[in-house]
Amino acid sequence: MREADRLQSTIDIATPCADVIERVRARSPRVHCITNAVAQNFTANVLLAAGARPSMTISPEEIGSFVASADALLVNLGTFDAARREAADRAIEVAAEEGLPWVLDPVLIDRSQPRAAYAADLVTRGPRAVRLNRAEFTALASAAPEGETLWRYAGDARTVIGLTGETDVVSDGARVATIRNGHPLMARVTAMGCVASALVAACLAIEGDAWLATTAALLAIGVAGEGAAAHARGPGSFAMEILDALDRLDRDGLLARAKVQ
Amino acid sequence: MREADRLQSTIDIATPCADVIERVRARSPRVHCITNAVAQNFTANVLLAAGARPSMTISPEEIGSFVASADALLVNLGTFDAARREAADRAIEVAAEEGLPWVLDPVLIDRSQPRAAYAADLVTRGPRAVRLNRAEFTALASAAPEGETLWRYAGDARTVIGLTGETDVVSDGARVATIRNGHPLMARVTAMGCVASALVAACLAIEGDAWLATTAALLAIGVAGEGAAAHARGPGSFAMEILDALDRLDRDGLLARAKVQ
Amino acid sequence: MREADRLQSTIDIATPCADVIERVRARSPRVHCITNAVAQNFTANVLLAAGARPSMTISPEEIGSFVASADALLVNLGTFDAARREAADRAIEVAAEEGLPWVLDPVLIDRSQPRAAYAADLVTRGPRAVRLNRAEFTALASAAPEGETLWRYAGDARTVIGLTGETDVVSDGARVATIRNGHPLMARVTAMGCVASALVAACLAIEGDAWLATTAALLAIGVAGEGAAAHARGPGSFAMEILDALDRLDRDGLLARAKVQ
Repeated sequence: MREADRLQSTIDIATPCADVIERVRARSPRVHCITNAVAQNFTANVLLAAGARPSMTISPEEIGSFVASADALLVNLGTFDAARREAADRAIEVAAEEGLPWVLDPVLIDRSQPRAAYAADLVTRGPRAVRLNRAEFTALASAAPEGETLWRYAGDARTVIGLTGETDVVSDGARVATIRNGHPLMARVTAMGCVASALVAACLAIEGDAWLATTAALLAIGVAGEGAAAHARGPGSFAMEILDALDRLDRDGLLARAKVQ
Repeated sequence: MREADRLQSTIDIATPCADVIERVRARSPRVHCITNAVAQNFTANVLLAAGARPSMTISPEEIGSFVASADALLVNLGTFDAARREAADRAIEVAAEEGLPWVLDPVLIDRSQPRAAYAADLVTRGPRAVRLNRAEFTALASAAPEGETLWRYAGDARTVIGLTGETDVVSDGARVATIRNGHPLMARVTAMGCVASALVAACLAIEGDAWLATTAALLAIGVAGEGAAAHARGPGSFAMEILDALDRLDRDGLLARAKVQ
Repeated sequence: MREADRLQSTIDIATPCADVIERVRARSPRVHCITNAVAQNFTANVLLAAGARPSMTISPEEIGSFVASADALLVNLGTFDAARREAADRAIEVAAEEGLPWVLDPVLIDRSQPRAAYAADLVTRGPRAVRLNRAEFTALASAAPEGETLWRYAGDARTVIGLTGETDVVSDGARVATIRNGHPLMARVTAMGCVASALVAACLAIEGDAWLATTAALLAIGVAGEGAAAHARGPGSFAMEILDALDRLDRDGLLARAKVQ
């Protein structure tokens, strides 16, 4: 078994990441979001600011047709209610039929054992990526064999893990990217992780390499966060500024600020 | 049958529109909103900024008393779930009993056949106005006879159609108003059409001519959008600025900027 | 029976209030919020800005474990649906078992008799505080004996009443605090009362004297409102600025502006 540090990429990742972000803006993929009530409005506005298009219904009568005509799917567990579970089940089924990429965001599974078990089950259904924080990863991996590391977990589960925190780490089991962008104010605004996951879905819609797509999304949100912090005077103005920063984020701006390897 | 261009108004519409907006602020009508989760907070804040008052419950036990004591009703199909369908059914019944004007916003019916059929059914229940975009109108009118135009559809359905886009068109079958206000950033913020529909409801609450009320609401949001764009640096600041712009929108500001005929 | 004016405090309340706000930031309590869809995002961001942490699920499977591990609970009746009633029932049961303080916000009970009756029943289940406006208090107290005043109601119900308006009044039956901070723009933004209630819950989490905790929360939001108004150009920017103002609110800023006695 290779060491994690041997997996560390030495090639330039920032340039292909910038390509991904440009293609999202050019192709404007529609991302169907099953997400929690706290995050819905902010998620829709983040997708629009990045050039993608959101849809949000969770109705059982409609979820099938909305997902079938979408370009990617987000399943966020921030509200673990019966309606959203039913919606997620049907949506993932349709995504599998259509070959649609989807992202799992197992929000706060460290706070609720039933939610953690549900998330572990969803991982077996083939998300292209899972975006979470350290506590959530620990809860998810605790069902796996002892000593499970991030990149090993990703490899075993055949998915990409995008772990966000002060430094973001993205691995598909074979490759690891680390991103040192972002700003402390990102932890002071609700649903910031949720919107990052939505952006991962938008990138998966136009990039078949899920590791690259996930890295591009987390890099873009981190760089936008730095741009927003330069104008913000607190968490309220920051939440507004990050939408403006995502909107104006271009290839040069991303490359100038990217701290990814 | 008269030609659509013959219907084009040549009288001054801006002045009566300004009167409508002033009366909303003076009378502060309460608009009960059955609307989607993405739009709820923004809708409430837009109504408050325009001088109206929002209420939002969809509970079957309460919807009757909330609607009966309201001044207008909004039915927005952005979430087509069983709870909202039940709420809408009861709310429309009470609105009919009380003579309360109501607005239909058939969000994204072009994406879902069951939702389009539901919207077509609601049109038969007497909304004073239907606010939608081009794709939604096409989906709605596709159930109607071939070659259905906007003004003919409005006349046949005995309602007012408020079609928003780069240019807004409002018709009751006999009259047509066109509004050339607005800004591209309005398409970059989620729920902008939803809040326009809520403002139509607020105007219907204090103006019996539904064509004039709808025109006034779409004119006000378009002019406010231009005012907001003058201060905004992107979609995030725009969403905030349009609330401030609506709040300070007065008669002179509206008349100075209005491009309506 | 003593006169209400005899209850008026003559001691310095501002200093212990500043202590409470400092302790919220130092200890970062988690507040579980059962609140309405309009208020959820703003509530989460207000708690984060004040240094607390929000959680929001209403799922019956999870509410127990989320509340058991929280530091305080908010029950807001802004959406009086079956799911939230079930969640509230279970959450209050767990709060009682765990000795967790909870706040009731009986939103708009003046508009709906079933909601008022439900609120009156919840008061018997031991909220440490009830935050409401004048119309809501009248609806709540109307079930009580004639001539019920705020401080008498609080004493009889063994809770703290935090009545917000141009002047806020807080009483536990034995003591009365009046707060003359705040700004008219606070009435122009949706869910401002809801977020004040959430802040009351955060203060109850770290302060056993519920009258002091409630006074501290309402004082903090009032002072933050004044700070926000100094930067705002309307209700949109105000909603953003109040988050920034809460974030930077410190002991000196609170004491300099406090008008509480």
